[in-house]
Amino acid sequence: MLTVEEKNAQKKAAAKAALEYIEDGMVVGLGTGSTAAYFIEALANQVRDKGWQLTCVTTSIESEQLAATVGLKTVPIEQVEQIDVTVDGADEVDARLNGIKGGGAALLFEKIVAFKSKQNVWVIDGEKKSDNLGTKFKLPVEVIRFGAQLLIPAFTQMGLKPKFRKQENGELFLTDSLHYIIDLDISGIFDLKTLATQLKGITGVVEHGLFLSVCDVLIIGGKTVQTIKG
Amino acid sequence: MLTVEEKNAQKKAAAKAALEYIEDGMVVGLGTGSTAAYFIEALANQVRDKGWQLTCVTTSIESEQLAATVGLKTVPIEQVEQIDVTVDGADEVDARLNGIKGGGAALLFEKIVAFKSKQNVWVIDGEKKSDNLGTKFKLPVEVIRFGAQLLIPAFTQMGLKPKFRKQENGELFLTDSLHYIIDLDISGIFDLKTLATQLKGITGVVEHGLFLSVCDVLIIGGKTVQTIKG
Repeated sequence: MLTVEEKNAQKKAAAKAALEYIEDGMVVGLGTGSTAAYFIEALANQVRDKGWQLTCVTTSIESEQLAATVGLKTVPIEQVEQIDVTVDGADEVDARLNGIKGGGAALLFEKIVAFKSKQNVWVIDGEKKSDNLGTKFKLPVEVIRFGAQLLIPAFTQMGLKPKFRKQENGELFLTDSLHYIIDLDISGIFDLKTLATQLKGITGVVEHGLFLSVCDVLIIGGKTVQTIKG
Repeated sequence: MLTVEEKNAQKKAAAKAALEYIEDGMVVGLGTGSTAAYFIEALANQVRDKGWQLTCVTTSIESEQLAATVGLKTVPIEQVEQIDVTVDGADEVDARLNGIKGGGAALLFEKIVAFKSKQNVWVIDGEKKSDNLGTKFKLPVEVIRFGAQLLIPAFTQMGLKPKFRKQENGELFLTDSLHYIIDLDISGIFDLKTLATQLKGITGVVEHGLFLSVCDVLIIGGKTVQTIKG
């Protein structure tokens, strides 16, 4: 297992390597989470050093605030027709570049931004690699508050051991869109594509954290940075 | 075409006929809209006259407020395991009892309540009957505000002539869950089941107003009230 310091070094290395995919004049999507934050900081430095003009869109209130702090110019997503490259983290990624995202609960906006991006680059530390999605990380599902409790029996019946995500004070966690998050155990599921369709089809489910066939380039931090193209 | 007065008389007659499906002690779902409002009023009278004890759940802030005004006891939906009967209106219903709902923009909560109901009774006036869904009414789709504009090209490509629903002051309409509504023209679509699956599958779409195989009993007001069982 990596120490926190080693993990941060890997995240930072991956984030820095992602700069290679960014060019002057691009529309860039900024992800959410600790590794995406390293990228946002590295990107701000690059823009300052090279005098670039970028247009950035963000995937959460959190990444919006960080972008403002480091001086990256952001616009509402409605103002761009398409995004050239989005750089985001992921919580668990398999060899086919499918992933689970949403530990930071930004999965909905992240997915909307990802689908509008010509290229999606994910940056992770080595511990996020996985042979089977769901063995390291729970799958977050964003749900409507109204009647959310009624989804629990349905998920339980599907064998997914649902648990509402809570804040530290014990109250239910709220996303940027004021929805709840239910975390699911999908370690026993093999057909992820069918699961994804089933979950999205449920009334009350807004979105889930399975990102299948979304990632184009995976950058894994480490002593040597590894890049895998999808 | 019916006059407003005739239409209201039909709505009232249908609403009153729906009382037949309610018994003392039941958990009752209260719909949203003008016909459902007639039912809520008629139900309140019945409860008062007969000294019934009902537990009601509502499908909107609007129906919640009306229930409070007429003295029906309501509980949050989380507090009931199942709903015995829900009585709701619909905007357009075909001969197979499939319908479009959501003119009042309560489609999301209405669908959540409908799926938790053992029996769904719809009450409509005669003008809501339709040979082909979508010829009289647009299909409302409830969408996440973030990136909502980006859905327009996708719907346009599907041939659905999307239009954001607006308030009278020209600003975009917001649902009880603070989402937008996009109205779609589905008059040219024949395979509604596939359309329903496609729409719900789109990232950013929370729910749509197609209610397929939901209605168990359709009550149509008129000189003689007509009841069709699914």
